Amino acid sequence: MKCELISVGTELLVGDTLNTNVQYLSRELSLLGIRVYFHTTVGDNPNRLEEAVRIAFNRSDLIITTGGLGPTQDDLTKEVIAKLFKRELIQDEKTKEDLLQYFANREFTMTPNNLKQTFIPETAEILFNPCGTAPGILLKEQGRVIIMLPGPPREMTRVFEDAVLPLLKQDNQQLVISRYYNLSDIGESATEDRLLDLIDAQVNPTIATYAKMGEVLVRITANGRDENEVNTLLDHYQEIMLSRFKENIFSFSKESLQETVCKLLLEKRISVATAESCTGGLIASQLTEYPGISMVFGTGLVTYSNEAKINLLGVKKETLDTYGAVSAETAREMCENLQKISQSMLSVSVTGIAGPEGGSEKKPVGLVYIGVCFNELTDVYHYHFNGERKVVQQKTANKVFHLIRKTIVDKSK
Amino acid sequence: MKCELISVGTELLVGDTLNTNVQYLSRELSLLGIRVYFHTTVGDNPNRLEEAVRIAFNRSDLIITTGGLGPTQDDLTKEVIAKLFKRELIQDEKTKEDLLQYFANREFTMTPNNLKQTFIPETAEILFNPCGTAPGILLKEQGRVIIMLPGPPREMTRVFEDAVLPLLKQDNQQLVISRYYNLSDIGESATEDRLLDLIDAQVNPTIATYAKMGEVLVRITANGRDENEVNTLLDHYQEIMLSRFKENIFSFSKESLQETVCKLLLEKRISVATAESCTGGLIASQLTEYPGISMVFGTGLVTYSNEAKINLLGVKKETLDTYGAVSAETAREMCENLQKISQSMLSVSVTGIAGPEGGSEKKPVGLVYIGVCFNELTDVYHYHFNGERKVVQQKTANKVFHLIRKTIVDKSK
Repeated sequence: MKCELISVGTELLVGDTLNTNVQYLSRELSLLGIRVYFHTTVGDNPNRLEEAVRIAFNRSDLIITTGGLGPTQDDLTKEVIAKLFKRELIQDEKTKEDLLQYFANREFTMTPNNLKQTFIPETAEILFNPCGTAPGILLKEQGRVIIMLPGPPREMTRVFEDAVLPLLKQDNQQLVISRYYNLSDIGESATEDRLLDLIDAQVNPTIATYAKMGEVLVRITANGRDENEVNTLLDHYQEIMLSRFKENIFSFSKESLQETVCKLLLEKRISVATAESCTGGLIASQLTEYPGISMVFGTGLVTYSNEAKINLLGVKKETLDTYGAVSAETAREMCENLQKISQSMLSVSVTGIAGPEGGSEKKPVGLVYIGVCFNELTDVYHYHFNGERKVVQQKTANKVFHLIRKTIVDKSK
Repeated sequence: MKCELISVGTELLVGDTLNTNVQYLSRELSLLGIRVYFHTTVGDNPNRLEEAVRIAFNRSDLIITTGGLGPTQDDLTKEVIAKLFKRELIQDEKTKEDLLQYFANREFTMTPNNLKQTFIPETAEILFNPCGTAPGILLKEQGRVIIMLPGPPREMTRVFEDAVLPLLKQDNQQLVISRYYNLSDIGESATEDRLLDLIDAQVNPTIATYAKMGEVLVRITANGRDENEVNTLLDHYQEIMLSRFKENIFSFSKESLQETVCKLLLEKRISVATAESCTGGLIASQLTEYPGISMVFGTGLVTYSNEAKINLLGVKKETLDTYGAVSAETAREMCENLQKISQSMLSVSVTGIAGPEGGSEKKPVGLVYIGVCFNELTDVYHYHFNGERKVVQQKTANKVFHLIRKTIVDKSK
C-alpha cells in the first residue's frame, strides 16, 4: 500500500511549528509495512490544498491529512476534500452531542463557530476524538482511502491510536511485533558497530537504533503470519542482544535509565542521597521527577563552593588544599560524609569541571570524579567527558545513574 | 517570490529522522518576505524525486532541496536535477582541492566514493560547505532558481547562512528587521489577547508569539525600503509593547529567563542560595547551567524529607507539625535559615506538592509556597499550578526565576 501524508497549516510554512506529526505517522505506518512515499505540507489556502490532495490522489492508495479541522474560517481540509469528491457536508447528531458534552465537562462556554466541527462529508466514517472538539474523518473514494486527522499532536496521536491503527492492522495480513532494548554506558556508533553484521544483512527482523544522551534504544521489529513465527525470529535476536550487550541493557522497554533506577531504588527500598558540585542539582532533580521517590530520597546537597563543601559536608580544608576540589579524595570524603549526614544506604557525590572555564592541563574541562558509597564501601570513578558545559553535566548525571544501577545489581544480591 | 522546499531522504519517510530543516528554512525565508507555499518530502528514489522537482518547478520561482548530496549510491539529488535540466556533471577542481584538504585537516582517509561530491552540473554555482564534504549547488533555469543544500542540519544551516542568505538578501528589495520581547509571568493566550487589536489588523509589522514553558517570546517584524522606515514602524510598536507588558518583559532578545537572571546576579554581584523541596534541585541545576555562576552561587539544598528540613535547615519540628511541610511558615523558615547558613545576599525556598499523589482538599496537588529573602526581608508567595508532576516542577522553577528578577529590580535600587 502506497501512502502519502499531507500536513495542512500556514504555521508550518512560516516555520512557527515543527512538524512532529509526520515523523510520528511515518514511523507508525512503516512498522505496519505501509510505504510512505511522499510528505506534502500546504497552508490554509483552498486552491493549493486542493492541488495537493489531487496530486496525492493520483499516486497513492492511502492519504492521511493532519490539521485544518478546527472551528475557524481558515480550517478548510474537510470543506476542500468534500468539494473535490462531490460530497455534501451534513451535520452529525452524535458528533454534536459529543461536542456539547465536551464543553459541559470542562465548564467552558461553546462559541457558535464550534458547530462547524459537527458537519461531516456524506458517506464518511467518523473517528471519535476523545481529547478535542474536531473528530477525525475517513472517506473512501475510487478504492482509495482518505483519512483526515486533527492537527494538535496530542489529538492526532490519540485518534490515530484509537481509531485508525485498528483499521489498518485489520487490513494488514502481516503481524508486526517490536522488541526494545535500552542500553547505557555505550554510544550509538559503538552499538551499531557491534550489530553491523546483522544490520547489513537485515531483512526480517529489521534493526533500528535511536540515540538519546547517554542511552541507546535498539528496536528489533519482525513480521510474520502469526505470533509464533514472529516470536521465534525475535527470540533468536534476543539471544544475540543479550550476549553482545549483557552489561549495557538496563531495560527491555522505552523506559529511561532514570526511570529504571528510580523504580529499582523503590523496589529494593534503598535510600539514596546526593552531593553535587559540577552537576549543580541535576541528579537530584532527575531523581525527583519520579513520582513517589520521596520514599527513598530525602537529602540532596549542592555544594558548589569550597565553603559549602566544608560547612555542609564536612570535607576537610586540608583535603581541598592538598588535592583540590576536583579530586578522587574530595569525591570520597563528600560521599562518605554525606552517608553519615543523611543516613542513606547509598550516597553519591560528584565533583568535576563542567567548563568552559576552570580547566588546566592537569585537570582539563570535562574531568569528573564520582563517588558511590554503598554498604559502607566507597568506590571512586573518574571520567573525561567531551562537550560543552550542559553536555558534560548531562553526561555526568547519566553516568551516575548508570553507576547507581550497577552498584545495586552487583552488590545487593 | 514563491518558494518550495523539497526534503530528500528515506530516513524522513520511515520516521527515523525529524525534519527540522524545513522549519529552519521556512522561518528564515519568511523573515525575508519570501513565501513558502509547499514542503515536499521524497525518498532516495530517482523517479519520485524527479516527479517532485518537476511539480515544484511548475509552481514555484525558488526551489530549495535538502539532502541527497552525499557520497553514496543512494544520494541522487544532484544527478536527478542535472538530468532533468539536461546538464552534464563536471568535476570541479577547486571542490576537489577543498575535499582533499578537508580529509587532510582531520587526518581521515578519504574513500574513493567521496570524489562523487566534486562533480557539479555545468553552469551551476558552487556554495562552499565549511562543515562537510558536500558543497551546496545553485542552478538557474528558465528564470527560476534551484538551490541544493546538504542534509545534515549543521551543514545545511551553515551553507544557507554563509552562501544563500546573502544572495537572497541582495535580490530582496525590502529590508526586514525583527525585534524580540521575552515575557515572563504571563501565558501565550493572555499575551495574544492583549495584542488582539494589533494581530487582527497586522500587515506591516507582523506579530508572532512563541510559547515556552513560563515564557512567551513576541517577535515583531517590519519591512520597508530603508532602516529609517523600518525602525520608525518598530519604534511605534515598541512603545505599545512597553506600555502593555511593562511588568513582563525581561529581555529584548531570545535569551531565556534563566540566562537573564544569572546575568543579573553576576552583574550586580548578588550571591544566591536555594532550598528546594518539591522542585528537588531543578532551580539549582538551572542556575548552574550558566557558565561562571560559581561567583555568586555556592550552596543549594534539596530538603525533600522533613528530617532533611529539620537537620540541614533547622526548620522547627513544631512548625512542620503545626502548619505542615507545605505552608507559608515552613517556606519562610526555610529561606530565612538558609540565608544564615549560606551567608548569601538572596535566598529562595520552595515547598509544594508536585503530585500526582500527596494532595488533599485543603492542600491540592500543584500548591506551592515560595520564599524569597533579600536584605533581611522575607516575602512568601503561594501559587497553584496545573499540570502533571514535571510541569508543576518546571512552572515552579520559572516562577522562582521570575521572583528573583522582580525582587532584585524592585529592591536593589
